[in-house]
Amino acid sequence: MARLKVPLIVVNYKAYPEAVGAKAVALSRTIEEIAKETGVSIAVAPQVTDLSLVADATSIPLYAQHIDDCEPGAKTGHVTAEALKETGVVGSLINHSERQLKLSAIEWIVKKTRALQLNSIVCANNPEVSVAVTMLNPTAVAIEPPELIGSGTAVSKARPEVVSATVDLIRKQRNDVAILCGAGIVNGDDVRSAVKLGVDGILVASGVVKARDPRAAVMDLAKALL
Amino acid sequence: MARLKVPLIVVNYKAYPEAVGAKAVALSRTIEEIAKETGVSIAVAPQVTDLSLVADATSIPLYAQHIDDCEPGAKTGHVTAEALKETGVVGSLINHSERQLKLSAIEWIVKKTRALQLNSIVCANNPEVSVAVTMLNPTAVAIEPPELIGSGTAVSKARPEVVSATVDLIRKQRNDVAILCGAGIVNGDDVRSAVKLGVDGILVASGVVKARDPRAAVMDLAKALL
Amino acid sequence: MARLKVPLIVVNYKAYPEAVGAKAVALSRTIEEIAKETGVSIAVAPQVTDLSLVADATSIPLYAQHIDDCEPGAKTGHVTAEALKETGVVGSLINHSERQLKLSAIEWIVKKTRALQLNSIVCANNPEVSVAVTMLNPTAVAIEPPELIGSGTAVSKARPEVVSATVDLIRKQRNDVAILCGAGIVNGDDVRSAVKLGVDGILVASGVVKARDPRAAVMDLAKALL
Amino acid sequence: MARLKVPLIVVNYKAYPEAVGAKAVALSRTIEEIAKETGVSIAVAPQVTDLSLVADATSIPLYAQHIDDCEPGAKTGHVTAEALKETGVVGSLINHSERQLKLSAIEWIVKKTRALQLNSIVCANNPEVSVAVTMLNPTAVAIEPPELIGSGTAVSKARPEVVSATVDLIRKQRNDVAILCGAGIVNGDDVRSAVKLGVDGILVASGVVKARDPRAAVMDLAKALL
Repeated sequence: MARLKVPLIVVNYKAYPEAVGAKAVALSRTIEEIAKETGVSIAVAPQVTDLSLVADATSIPLYAQHIDDCEPGAKTGHVTAEALKETGVVGSLINHSERQLKLSAIEWIVKKTRALQLNSIVCANNPEVSVAVTMLNPTAVAIEPPELIGSGTAVSKARPEVVSATVDLIRKQRNDVAILCGAGIVNGDDVRSAVKLGVDGILVASGVVKARDPRAAVMDLAKALL
Repeated sequence: MARLKVPLIVVNYKAYPEAVGAKAVALSRTIEEIAKETGVSIAVAPQVTDLSLVADATSIPLYAQHIDDCEPGAKTGHVTAEALKETGVVGSLINHSERQLKLSAIEWIVKKTRALQLNSIVCANNPEVSVAVTMLNPTAVAIEPPELIGSGTAVSKARPEVVSATVDLIRKQRNDVAILCGAGIVNGDDVRSAVKLGVDGILVASGVVKARDPRAAVMDLAKALL
Repeated sequence: MARLKVPLIVVNYKAYPEAVGAKAVALSRTIEEIAKETGVSIAVAPQVTDLSLVADATSIPLYAQHIDDCEPGAKTGHVTAEALKETGVVGSLINHSERQLKLSAIEWIVKKTRALQLNSIVCANNPEVSVAVTMLNPTAVAIEPPELIGSGTAVSKARPEVVSATVDLIRKQRNDVAILCGAGIVNGDDVRSAVKLGVDGILVASGVVKARDPRAAVMDLAKALL
Repeated sequence: MARLKVPLIVVNYKAYPEAVGAKAVALSRTIEEIAKETGVSIAVAPQVTDLSLVADATSIPLYAQHIDDCEPGAKTGHVTAEALKETGVVGSLINHSERQLKLSAIEWIVKKTRALQLNSIVCANNPEVSVAVTMLNPTAVAIEPPELIGSGTAVSKARPEVVSATVDLIRKQRNDVAILCGAGIVNGDDVRSAVKLGVDGILVASGVVKARDPRAAVMDLAKALL
């Protein structure tokens, strides 16, 4: 039993200029509408500067993109789980391929999110790393082969064996960790092939944020989960 | 001629739990009132999660505590200067002792802030490093000996020769870079001794944020600049 | 079945001035003599600058203290597994608490050592991290609670439950990964209590390198394994 | 007055497989012969694992490629200046573009090398960074635009204005800091154009290490300095 509402789509805004400030709010509203229309579980991960803005303007589930492994205190320039919780996030991505962490930091942050009742989505670059982080008991593991991130070629089609191997390895260990996959996912077909491989959801970024028509792009992804 | 309104007090909220979320807003309102009452130039540096909240609630000059050295784009979990500018900050601390950066990153970020018309306050741990960063032409250099940060023993009293040496070295190079000092500053006396050493302002953190009466603490600091 | 000759003592020279250059060679000769006299399996991990010196002067099994996660090439200032192999090491510590790595780097390095037929001893700070790295299939996992490193208070006596929990968690997953423990181990009693908790060997550093009589210190540790 | 024997060629072996172990020794012998034949000052920077080997086999001036900013002690996996000095190096590259450091670390290391009477060659990616590190008073500054490193297109020909600007900015501050340039330098013409721009020497890596005939390549570079 996953501890997340699955199947789940997480839209990662990264540091894209197309999804900052007022544009982050507008995109989040659009995505929230589609979530309501379709009933599909969709969450967004805006830039940290925009979390409270989006929280104020929408009620879509919000994720941070990163947490630092430190307690609140004399840590200038760091982002604590406690400060993120204040913004209204329900969880965070952890160890994204573009913001990797030391192993002991990942373990510390997963434990911290659990204590704060936040969801932890730990990213991993291959099946071995995926099962390693599974042992830390996060809410979800997201497998994303870095070479496919932003490529427009979906991991679920280009490297189905990576996704399958990840699902197999994780499911031998735990049933209560959700499994997401990402990298190159841009349309409903990519999502359907991912779901067939056994994942509980997907991570998408440029496929939505940089789409000519983000509403249509999200709708296409969502419909694949109906 | 400094490019900042000096003398200047910058209150760094670090990741202190006493100054997060609604408490960051409340503290910023208090500080803004004192700035208005006294006419002293005071800026605040809240946690990145709170910048847009504070910007919405006050018109006090806002600084970020840190900027990452990357362009907007596929940089999950990073904080770009562009995203910070959207929140309404007028500048940022850079290379704080608790969030140090590679030299090439400091140079990149100073250049980027200049392009975006943001102020750059580059922190340095000793006179040699202070003059090195001066060559990058930031808006201000802040000398903070790390061993005194959070100590309650003011750099301006415990290590006046460090502050003087910094002022001497920087002023041989440029007159248009403001010089701040910090570390251990908690009261008006500390500020007065700093100003006597030739600085244009001070950085303060726990001395305000963790004060039993933050309003009184800020007022004491501000009056020292009248 | 462990893929190392166990029980095993690994003496980590860290960057101690007592064990650099000619002193590293002398200490290694002493330790080699004790290994021969007692028949106990003892390996040493000198500073990277001394590996070829010690390899030239002794035939004691040598470990590096760290490997960088990069292929040979344009990587100025990095230490590749290939360059280490040239010095004659039989393996390396990986992710020591004083030289921690990103998770994907640990996985990469473990795989690389396997390809080069080098042993990998991956360090971990707690039982959860220990079992996570076990999933990467290293030669050995070394549990070392950082707060006890260099303390003179042995993990096997001060925190036996940490060692036991680590052994339990790892043994549920694999029998062919050796389990070492370290932190605060200084004498034979510490070693005996560690072995009783189920470990296959120990990591020791200051307990030998900074001992008044390193020969006596190593002999005491070795005899505990007879 | 530079504190190095100039003009100087420094051959950086990086982590190239063509210059590891016995191959590092052989290449160093070849380079030493050319230095003796021509009288040109040539130094080499082998991998850290090979420093004592090369020191044992030759008397060519040796540089490390990197130093960590820590004192000898409990620093597993770190390379101290003291340990490097034991190997017989006369100095070190610092902050190479492939191994960049925090600014406070650069300052610390430059000071440490001075205390140990080692030469410090601090690398910088552009003129602004070059003059910043000049203020730390190293033995030499090496300007290397990262985009030209390994390109085969010499900085001295492709970006002469970068080299000139660096020389101008540094010479306004100090005459006793040597100025080197590197990136893309492969032949004597590149060296001659660099010298015309005012530098005291060059850094070269793949142009020698990966040359079909390294002896001929070094000879060509050396003759340009006669």
